[in-house]
Amino acid sequence: MNSSNAPIGIFDSGIGGLTVLHAVQALLPHENFIYLGDTARLPYGTKSKDTVCQYAFRVTEFLSTQHIKLLVVACNTATAAALPELKAKYPQIPIIGVIEAGARAGAEKTQTKSVAILATEGTVRGMAYQNALELLDKNIKVTALPSPLFVTLAEVGWTSGKLVEDIIKEYLKPIISSIETEKIDTIILGCTHFPVLKKSIENVLGKDIHLVDSAELIAEEVSSVLEDAKLKNLNTSQGHVSYFVTDSPERFVAIGKIFTNRTLDENDVTLIDI
Amino acid sequence: MNSSNAPIGIFDSGIGGLTVLHAVQALLPHENFIYLGDTARLPYGTKSKDTVCQYAFRVTEFLSTQHIKLLVVACNTATAAALPELKAKYPQIPIIGVIEAGARAGAEKTQTKSVAILATEGTVRGMAYQNALELLDKNIKVTALPSPLFVTLAEVGWTSGKLVEDIIKEYLKPIISSIETEKIDTIILGCTHFPVLKKSIENVLGKDIHLVDSAELIAEEVSSVLEDAKLKNLNTSQGHVSYFVTDSPERFVAIGKIFTNRTLDENDVTLIDI
Repeated sequence: MNSSNAPIGIFDSGIGGLTVLHAVQALLPHENFIYLGDTARLPYGTKSKDTVCQYAFRVTEFLSTQHIKLLVVACNTATAAALPELKAKYPQIPIIGVIEAGARAGAEKTQTKSVAILATEGTVRGMAYQNALELLDKNIKVTALPSPLFVTLAEVGWTSGKLVEDIIKEYLKPIISSIETEKIDTIILGCTHFPVLKKSIENVLGKDIHLVDSAELIAEEVSSVLEDAKLKNLNTSQGHVSYFVTDSPERFVAIGKIFTNRTLDENDVTLIDI
Repeated sequence: MNSSNAPIGIFDSGIGGLTVLHAVQALLPHENFIYLGDTARLPYGTKSKDTVCQYAFRVTEFLSTQHIKLLVVACNTATAAALPELKAKYPQIPIIGVIEAGARAGAEKTQTKSVAILATEGTVRGMAYQNALELLDKNIKVTALPSPLFVTLAEVGWTSGKLVEDIIKEYLKPIISSIETEKIDTIILGCTHFPVLKKSIENVLGKDIHLVDSAELIAEEVSSVLEDAKLKNLNTSQGHVSYFVTDSPERFVAIGKIFTNRTLDENDVTLIDI
C-alpha cells in the first residue's frame, strides 16, 4: 500500500471524536479514515492517568496494525494523559492531540488576555488547558467551567432551538458574569462533544466572543502535517471511513448521527475486542 | 455489638442511591447507616452483567466486614445484574433491591394496566422492569423511555423551576403522547437519580399520573423487614451515617448536597480501595 493512500487514524473514548473526524473530512475529502471509539471503556474523564495511558496504548497498537499514516487523539482526556507517552512509543506515526491546538488558538485569538474553557470535569480538574495556556503566555488569565450538561445535551441530540439556548444561557451564567468582570473575549470548546452546540452557544454569547472549536484547528494541523510529509492522498475520489467500536455499535450509530449530520451505515461499524 | 444497633448498608454505583438513603432515614431516623458509592467504577449501566456482579460482590464483602444488619442495593443496574447472586452468596444478610419494589408498586397503582418506566439506557435495555412487571401481571402494557438527560440534570442540581419543567416537557414528549394513546396512568421512576426531579415531573404531567418513586417503597420494605426480624434500632437518638466512596470524595460531597438536601461533612466521607 502506498502510504499516501493509507488511512488517517482517529480515536476517542466514544462518540465525540466524530466532530473531529467530520472537520478533517470536510477539509480533506479524499482521505481514508479509520475511526475507533473505545466505547467499552468510556468515559475516560473519570479514570486515572495510568489507566487512560494503558487504554490509549491498546487503541494505538490496534490502529498501527491497520497501517495508519497519522493518528489524531480526538479525546481531551487521552491527550492530556497520554500524548507524550504515545509519541515516545510510536515514533514512526505522526500523532496530533486536541489540547495544544485549542490552547494555541485561544492564546492567539485573545486580545484581553482572558480566556475561558468549557470542558468536562476531568479535563478541567486535570488542568491540561490551563497548563498549555500558561506555557504559551504566562499573562493569560484562565477561567474554567466544567460543563457536563453539554455532553449530555449533545448525546441526546439537543443542539439547537429556543429551549437549548435557554439552557445554555442559564448554564453559562458563571461565564457570562465573568465575561464582564474578567474581560473574557475567547472561549475554548475543550470537549469534542461541544462543537455540535457551537452555533447555539454563539447565539447566546454574541459575536464579540471568539469560540475556539479545536475540531477545525485539528483539521488544519492534519492537513499541514500531511503536506509537509508529502503524505496527502492524491486520489480524487471521495475517501472512505471504517468505524471500529469496543461496545454497542447500535448506540454508536444512533448517537453518531448527531455528530456527523449523516446516517452511519451499521455495516461500516465493526465491534472489536482489544 | 447488639445487632439491632448495627448499621444498615446501602450501596450504589455512585450518588443516586442517596435518594434511597434519604427516604430510609426519613422513615427510620434512629437507624445508623453505612453508605457506599462505588464512584471509581461508575457508571454500572454500561457494563456487562458479569462485571457488575463482581463489583457488587466486592462492595458487599466490604460492607459485611462492617457488620451491617441489612443491605439495600440502591442501584437499578446492580439490582438487575446481581440481586439473586448476592442473596445466594450472603444468606446471613437480608438484601433488598430497588427494582422489585418499584415494579410491584407500579402494578398495584395502575388501573389502566398501562405503565411507563423512565430509567437509564442500561436499565431499559436490560428489560429488568419490563420482566418484573410481566411476572407480576401479564396484562400490563409497558412503555419504557431511556432518560439519560435526567441523570445529568439531577447531577448538576437542576431539579426545579420553569426551565427545568420546560426541559422535562420536551424530553417526555414521547411519553406524553403515549399517555393518551396507551392510556398510561402510572410512571415508575426507575433510576435512583430521578426522585429529586419528582415534583417537577409531577408539575408537568399533572396529578392524574401516579409517579412511583421506589425510594419511598424501599424505605417501607426496610422498615417491615427489620420489624419482622426484630432488628429495629431501639435507640431514640438521631442515627449516624458513615459514607465510603472508591473515588473523589470531593465530587461526592458536592453533588451529594443535591440528593440529600443537606451538607455532607467531608470528614464523614472515607475514600477506600476495594
